[in-house]
Amino acid sequence: MSWFLKTVPELSPNQLALPIVQDLLARSKQFQVEVHLIGGAKVIDCGIAVPGGWEAGLSFASICLGGLARVTMHWADFGGLRWPAVEVVTDHPIRACLASQYAGWLIKKDKFSAMGSGPGRAVVQAEELFARLGYSDPSSVAIFCLESRQLPTEDVVKMIVEKCGREPSDLYILVAPTASPVGSLQIAARAVETGLHKLMELGYDLGNVESGWGICPIPPVAANDLSALGRTNDAVLYGASVQYQLSDDDETLTSLVAQIPSLASRDYGELFEKLFQRYGNFYDIDPLIFSPAEVWLSNRRSGRSFHAGALRPDLLRTSFGLSL
Amino acid sequence: MSWFLKTVPELSPNQLALPIVQDLLARSKQFQVEVHLIGGAKVIDCGIAVPGGWEAGLSFASICLGGLARVTMHWADFGGLRWPAVEVVTDHPIRACLASQYAGWLIKKDKFSAMGSGPGRAVVQAEELFARLGYSDPSSVAIFCLESRQLPTEDVVKMIVEKCGREPSDLYILVAPTASPVGSLQIAARAVETGLHKLMELGYDLGNVESGWGICPIPPVAANDLSALGRTNDAVLYGASVQYQLSDDDETLTSLVAQIPSLASRDYGELFEKLFQRYGNFYDIDPLIFSPAEVWLSNRRSGRSFHAGALRPDLLRTSFGLSL
Amino acid sequence: MSWFLKTVPELSPNQLALPIVQDLLARSKQFQVEVHLIGGAKVIDCGIAVPGGWEAGLSFASICLGGLARVTMHWADFGGLRWPAVEVVTDHPIRACLASQYAGWLIKKDKFSAMGSGPGRAVVQAEELFARLGYSDPSSVAIFCLESRQLPTEDVVKMIVEKCGREPSDLYILVAPTASPVGSLQIAARAVETGLHKLMELGYDLGNVESGWGICPIPPVAANDLSALGRTNDAVLYGASVQYQLSDDDETLTSLVAQIPSLASRDYGELFEKLFQRYGNFYDIDPLIFSPAEVWLSNRRSGRSFHAGALRPDLLRTSFGLSL
Repeated sequence: MSWFLKTVPELSPNQLALPIVQDLLARSKQFQVEVHLIGGAKVIDCGIAVPGGWEAGLSFASICLGGLARVTMHWADFGGLRWPAVEVVTDHPIRACLASQYAGWLIKKDKFSAMGSGPGRAVVQAEELFARLGYSDPSSVAIFCLESRQLPTEDVVKMIVEKCGREPSDLYILVAPTASPVGSLQIAARAVETGLHKLMELGYDLGNVESGWGICPIPPVAANDLSALGRTNDAVLYGASVQYQLSDDDETLTSLVAQIPSLASRDYGELFEKLFQRYGNFYDIDPLIFSPAEVWLSNRRSGRSFHAGALRPDLLRTSFGLSL
Repeated sequence: MSWFLKTVPELSPNQLALPIVQDLLARSKQFQVEVHLIGGAKVIDCGIAVPGGWEAGLSFASICLGGLARVTMHWADFGGLRWPAVEVVTDHPIRACLASQYAGWLIKKDKFSAMGSGPGRAVVQAEELFARLGYSDPSSVAIFCLESRQLPTEDVVKMIVEKCGREPSDLYILVAPTASPVGSLQIAARAVETGLHKLMELGYDLGNVESGWGICPIPPVAANDLSALGRTNDAVLYGASVQYQLSDDDETLTSLVAQIPSLASRDYGELFEKLFQRYGNFYDIDPLIFSPAEVWLSNRRSGRSFHAGALRPDLLRTSFGLSL
Repeated sequence: MSWFLKTVPELSPNQLALPIVQDLLARSKQFQVEVHLIGGAKVIDCGIAVPGGWEAGLSFASICLGGLARVTMHWADFGGLRWPAVEVVTDHPIRACLASQYAGWLIKKDKFSAMGSGPGRAVVQAEELFARLGYSDPSSVAIFCLESRQLPTEDVVKMIVEKCGREPSDLYILVAPTASPVGSLQIAARAVETGLHKLMELGYDLGNVESGWGICPIPPVAANDLSALGRTNDAVLYGASVQYQLSDDDETLTSLVAQIPSLASRDYGELFEKLFQRYGNFYDIDPLIFSPAEVWLSNRRSGRSFHAGALRPDLLRTSFGLSL
């Protein structure tokens, strides 16, 4: 592994996300979010007791990416299915996606349990991933994003504060349920991250990856969080296209590319909720399925681009509950 | 009807549009618009004696939506016709589209006559619609958008000032002809609004609608305003797709969705200018035709999405005067 | 020729680009660019010893267009090839594209040689083009964009300073190699410019052109600058669509439009690098090939739009080195 990240203070994902958080707070009525002071930290409800919305989702996604990606929304075509999409472009793929956006920190205390994402993870350093990244963010401020239908309790916040070693007043915790507009958008914004994580699972040296560019359909809000979990995953597995610019040799990439998209998994072709039901839990599902539908690796060393995977509008239609 | 809007002062469409107006004024040379002081009010010519342009059109549309929508421009595909498009996303569909953008106020005085749109309508409260909305904007500033080839006279401005009960210096009146770049873009930006208005015509409870997302081709500027009226309407009727997130029961939506798109009208399939000629006036045209080409209703209660309508690139090509 | 540009001081492309340059400098770590003080001028490496990136490319393109165009990035469809694209919209086509973006100034001194583009050209006035434009920018600041793999030497900077008649501290020189992310994006952002230049070559009166709107695929970074030269040209010649709004008579435009796209050249259909090899130099290639793949002329006088050309995804795939 040679992909240790240098600590460039100007590139602190927490510091770069902070103005986006402040804008969200300043326009909370417009974004339809609500701030709560819990244990001294600012906890921002983005879709539990308040509606949130597409705009709040865009902010949430930008914050979760540590302010190091451009996030946009537009209608696009997915193999014949025209549907609203979210697009992410980043020149800091590891810092934005793995050190910040990846939902890798299990926050569990008493009855509260949620996967934590966002740049605050690079402050906490609770995951083995950060040893591999060789990166920590010395930021005085820590920002977290939680996929949950419950706000964290005071005890949960206290635990996060302790793990951070920061003042409670320097903590921002954004929370959105899976089945909400913010949830739909911010998970669909994880296509570039999901592909990078798959590359890491395959043992690939992420230090080679210079940029990531992805597009993913935004699933309509589901009736409940389990169904939302299904269709937000399906959006990536069967609807996302990503392109990575990297430097490597063509032989490596030729064999690598075929292993990346969801298509390379034994569980490919089944809707995520069905897989969840079949295996009875999250952890027996083939981890190799978590990847975008379609991947391009553009090798600047040779100038050649390698492709694998395909969009599955048929599965998207079923998963998203779209009428004909 | 249960869709009364609460008055949230932070969400005043006039106050939120004001900085966009100020930016337009500050960069009037770049936007190719011109401000006139008429009766003490700032009247901004966006395409009569000055060229205006796509950028000014984007500002005009954002202002007209009360600053409560994201408006973007990009090339898109419309059933095989690749063409520049405008896209609108809003989490405040009623406030942005009906209380602000809808061209519902007939401004008529002496020889001057124009349909007034923009957030100032929520100050004036001249339309029966506002009783239904249960909404008024207490803003000290009032902003209007006029589709006209004439600037309002001093008497017209005086009348608007009186209806507003505001100081003339707190009035901003943007004017653009139908046959102008600003006219083309700002009317194409009305797809989400047109669909909402159709829902209202159908007696639907708009309080259920949480967000709107639409895309519409921007018609090339027409040779005269009548022709422009035709093709800007056709752009919506035969080229626009909209998605609404709402909460309702599936049975209601299944029967509702089929009634929404332009396709549900007896006048469907004819170019707008021909309809106008056939009926000899605006008011005998079937009001049910005013609706986007294609509609998705995404029901967050059930998670299912309902679809009706279709794009008609053939009609767009004829209406827009496109060579093969 | 009747297309002399009035000098509107508020529309100085150098002054309008300056805040974008300052933002690039302020966030140099994020944009992965590096500033060097050479001969007293600020020379910004955007991809030689530093990586640059898509974000830096967007800034570079906006600066090169004199701050008078909207530049965006998104995945798009090019005749069946889905690929990341750059889009440019301008209401100041001549000022943004010809007076600023066009790479028309050969900067040659000792062993250094590079085509200079950017708004600084309107200060220097070294090209015959500016006599035709009847335009010069009196701006105290001058901003240049160079396509080169070398930073300019102190002597080169001194020469530019002299040609400008400005203080060295008021000079900004951005440099990016062809084979770099910034190079790929900023050249693909030249579709509108390339079509205008072709119109000029055909002797057309550019004073008729009111706006330009173009989309072009962003070629993946090539292995070397020659290959990059090939695929960045191919991106425009075989992948770009542009629309111009103008005022003229239909007969003129009917015969004009067919002459504009690359398709009108005897060298059409061959990849650019092959043409370069066949002719052995740049100057024997048919100059008429330098044009977008597809052109729309929208005549606001008649309301009709004229089309010529076609996308060639087959050639793009080969040129870009895309696997199946």
